[in-house]
Amino acid sequence: MMEYAAIHHQPFSSDAYSYDGRTLHIKIRTKKDDADHVRFIWGDPYEYTGGTWNANELAMAKIAATSTHDYWFAEVVPPFRRLQYGFILTGTDEQDTFYGSNGACPFAGKTADTGKHCFKFPFVHEADTFDAPDWVKSTVWYQIFPERFASGREDLSPENALPWGSKDPEVHDFFGGDLQGIMDKLDYLKDLGVGGIYLTPIFAAPSNHKYDTLDYCSIDPHFGDEELFRTLVSRLHERGMKIMLDAVFNHIGSASREWQDVVKNGEKSRYKDWFHVHSFPVKEGGYDTFAFTPEMPKLNTANPEVQAYLLDIALYWIREFDIDGWRLDVANEVDHAFWKKFRQAVTAEKPDIFILGEIWHQADPWLRGDEFHSVMNYPFTEPMIDYFADGSISASQMASRINSHLMSGMKQVNEVMFNLLDSHDTKRILTRCGGDDKKVRSLLAFMFAQTGSPCIYYGTEIGLDGGDDPLCRKCMVWEEEKQNQEMLTFMKRLIALRKQENDVLTYGALEWRLVDDENDFVSFSRTHEGKELIYFFHQGSEVRRVRLHDLKIASDKRIYDAWSEEALHHDDAVDIQPGGFFILGAV
Amino acid sequence: MMEYAAIHHQPFSSDAYSYDGRTLHIKIRTKKDDADHVRFIWGDPYEYTGGTWNANELAMAKIAATSTHDYWFAEVVPPFRRLQYGFILTGTDEQDTFYGSNGACPFAGKTADTGKHCFKFPFVHEADTFDAPDWVKSTVWYQIFPERFASGREDLSPENALPWGSKDPEVHDFFGGDLQGIMDKLDYLKDLGVGGIYLTPIFAAPSNHKYDTLDYCSIDPHFGDEELFRTLVSRLHERGMKIMLDAVFNHIGSASREWQDVVKNGEKSRYKDWFHVHSFPVKEGGYDTFAFTPEMPKLNTANPEVQAYLLDIALYWIREFDIDGWRLDVANEVDHAFWKKFRQAVTAEKPDIFILGEIWHQADPWLRGDEFHSVMNYPFTEPMIDYFADGSISASQMASRINSHLMSGMKQVNEVMFNLLDSHDTKRILTRCGGDDKKVRSLLAFMFAQTGSPCIYYGTEIGLDGGDDPLCRKCMVWEEEKQNQEMLTFMKRLIALRKQENDVLTYGALEWRLVDDENDFVSFSRTHEGKELIYFFHQGSEVRRVRLHDLKIASDKRIYDAWSEEALHHDDAVDIQPGGFFILGAV
Repeated sequence: MMEYAAIHHQPFSSDAYSYDGRTLHIKIRTKKDDADHVRFIWGDPYEYTGGTWNANELAMAKIAATSTHDYWFAEVVPPFRRLQYGFILTGTDEQDTFYGSNGACPFAGKTADTGKHCFKFPFVHEADTFDAPDWVKSTVWYQIFPERFASGREDLSPENALPWGSKDPEVHDFFGGDLQGIMDKLDYLKDLGVGGIYLTPIFAAPSNHKYDTLDYCSIDPHFGDEELFRTLVSRLHERGMKIMLDAVFNHIGSASREWQDVVKNGEKSRYKDWFHVHSFPVKEGGYDTFAFTPEMPKLNTANPEVQAYLLDIALYWIREFDIDGWRLDVANEVDHAFWKKFRQAVTAEKPDIFILGEIWHQADPWLRGDEFHSVMNYPFTEPMIDYFADGSISASQMASRINSHLMSGMKQVNEVMFNLLDSHDTKRILTRCGGDDKKVRSLLAFMFAQTGSPCIYYGTEIGLDGGDDPLCRKCMVWEEEKQNQEMLTFMKRLIALRKQENDVLTYGALEWRLVDDENDFVSFSRTHEGKELIYFFHQGSEVRRVRLHDLKIASDKRIYDAWSEEALHHDDAVDIQPGGFFILGAV
Repeated sequence: MMEYAAIHHQPFSSDAYSYDGRTLHIKIRTKKDDADHVRFIWGDPYEYTGGTWNANELAMAKIAATSTHDYWFAEVVPPFRRLQYGFILTGTDEQDTFYGSNGACPFAGKTADTGKHCFKFPFVHEADTFDAPDWVKSTVWYQIFPERFASGREDLSPENALPWGSKDPEVHDFFGGDLQGIMDKLDYLKDLGVGGIYLTPIFAAPSNHKYDTLDYCSIDPHFGDEELFRTLVSRLHERGMKIMLDAVFNHIGSASREWQDVVKNGEKSRYKDWFHVHSFPVKEGGYDTFAFTPEMPKLNTANPEVQAYLLDIALYWIREFDIDGWRLDVANEVDHAFWKKFRQAVTAEKPDIFILGEIWHQADPWLRGDEFHSVMNYPFTEPMIDYFADGSISASQMASRINSHLMSGMKQVNEVMFNLLDSHDTKRILTRCGGDDKKVRSLLAFMFAQTGSPCIYYGTEIGLDGGDDPLCRKCMVWEEEKQNQEMLTFMKRLIALRKQENDVLTYGALEWRLVDDENDFVSFSRTHEGKELIYFFHQGSEVRRVRLHDLKIASDKRIYDAWSEEALHHDDAVDIQPGGFFILGAV
């Protein structure tokens, strides 16, 4: 008998959702290796003939497995936009189980009789369908920490700015990076191939990272001014590139006018309800903050005045400067009610604006279609790094965690996930890999092979290293002789390949072809509309020979080395070096 | 080893939610009888001492079981409103398992090391906390189908109205019920003890049920007029009673001005985007409808004009007539985006308005705090009826399904669920029970014993019967000699008892004390603040003797027969007749 307690389908979740306003995606999970096959039973909830439900049947596909579960998938376009559905699961013991709204039970009847116990998807509405801007799916992102990317105007630098790259950064150091510096490097970025830049905060703030906002309406004077920013945006747009800014709305800087007014006037301050102050006069520990940082008093986003203030800011930078996206700092600690208003306001202003939340954990409630388009995809980062960089998990554990994470999301959400290996909040990936740039290349190739839009943290492409904050915020190295040119060449090719194969890598089905823990060898394919890309990652210690014939690719397919674009023959063998990877194309 | 595949906890769901804006409720489920005990590991996500997470531990309580799972519960008030948490489950084999954001694994380490793999509840916001009007929790509802409840003014009756109660109703019959009739019976309702009435639609419409709205802004002329309705509301309010109207916003009647304009003018109609017309000119089957009913064209609630139109109506009846609740017809087939706007609009107009959705299935997405307060609780109705009326499931199956349903909801949602045995859309409960009024009384007592606010369909209290629609819409019987007076007396006592014990029955923990399938005997208790009500339901065929001593009630508790209020002694025995029930109080 099947393990009933392990069967799981949650209606109205990423297990049952509208993909495009017409098509429904349905998933169910069973205990691993417990079901032999699963049939999807479906029909209209009102369509009965002579008292008998007009039920249809569809075979579900097993699309993923984790260490504990198998996942089954079906898609259906209900003709009247309404769906009533259930599942018939056949165990490896050939016994049938019906699973519906009252759980699991042995099944030996007629599918038409199951209606009463079926799940419902009452009506497929476009208005309730998660939808993200199309351009995100073909964007390779580049994250810039402006104080450390490039200095274009020395006159803007803080008085105490240190010579560029003269030392490893400490918490309070300044080096004088600015917006002119970014502008000067747009051709570099274009040549690299990135399609969008994400800037950590650029609004007036005392610190080098600017997460302690002083004034959301002005560019930090050490970075430039509004005119310079306007020019930067237009130069980016001329090059077909996008720009995303960082909205730090969870908290404000303690130096801000608003907080200082509360400090000074206490209960009499007109801003007293803008924060979460436990008692007046304010004292350290007596008000809510970001983490336990007194310099970052938490804003009360349930206060309509604060909402109006923050939404004005969000709209101002879109309307006046035409920015393309907002990345929302500490997004998970702000209330959903506020983000829903934010979403409505900014998409009304610019329908294809991109909203990216900083959320480190599973983020389903923010990704239902009425809040964010995407989140920083750390739950995907972690298993990749645990496997490639740390070697703390096996290849099959990595595959299990990636599958589990992919299965927890709607397909169209996964397609626009913001994938990253590192950021200003983590060790740099090269340092995480112990300086082993082969591992970094494997990780990059692996990340670029997955659905979602990949982001490179500035400097990764020329071999910049650095430990935890503040060391991950080193000055960019611009002297070519100090740059890792091999890495740069690699990165350009990787980005070019991603853009070339973007449809396969965005929409293609992911199939793990071989996960060989013993030899630390992983192979998976991405397949879409007749094209297949097969990836091989080899972390073992011996050269690995792959006989292409063994891959069972239809003999009429043209096959090629996707990296070099050289043609291959079905009888060829490919040797993959330890630490290396290989990508086979078949079309 | 525990069954890892069966362990389930969904963050940001009814498994992890804010109960009151400060307190978090946490649930996890395990395979039935698989875990011996479960520890809840929790702390602040930012509170580390010397690199070590300050983790706390709390024993979880096993609060429910179904045929497949055990459910474990803990509540916690995180001091900084932020929570990081995981679970340590000890199997019956004494092995420990850690369950966190990456799933389950064997555990032998320190709880402080689990932080990295924990779930998060990032911040407890009042703004995101489900909250319903308090008054609902102490309201016993009474559903009225106005055309059949009472005729107060013959001059209003349709020309073709049949003499009151002269025959069983057919689909198109009229009998002349009206608002004056309801007004005339307010003392009857007050005496019965109900606290709120729910009227199926009263707006102008051709049919007797009025679900085919002609004009949402006027009272149907056969029911009365605006003045009469205003008086009715004020008379209800004078008596401390509430009134809820039926909002039929999924579709409109085909006779309405708006639809007729589309029929006449086709693509040139100014209302052409108010509906889902597939092609012009409109023809049957060429536009979306409720079910397959051409007289009920579906409204396009994604159209801002339609939204404004419907919201105006919703506000009009609140503002001008002070109604207390809206019941939303076919609520599940309207988009969530619209209901969120509806919620905002009506609660801004009247903060303690009650929003009740007609949803027959599991309704979690509508009950997250930003759409409805409650739904018609058919998933609770069904197992009750399957057991008591049909005998198609065992007592333990009923208990399993009720537990499963309760566990799928947040506690504060369950507290305001709209519990019912029947309605204008089902067979009447007496007919469902094959005319056995003992069964009806057991069912009523059972329903009134559960959390949620119970609703009586008009006439149940005097023994009205009737099969499926239209038979369940018979004229109310007002001649006392034709009323089942025993049922009426019973109902008054049941309602009085509910009101008397409302706190225990709303907030009290539910514990199934004995589920004896062999003898068809069920006992459960509700416990709150030191008071316990123990219910016994006996569907078996032999008299059942309950020795109170066996109930293991602390000997210093005063015990009594809750129905008769007679004192009992701990040494007493009570005989419960076949088909009967008994309620013991202990305080």
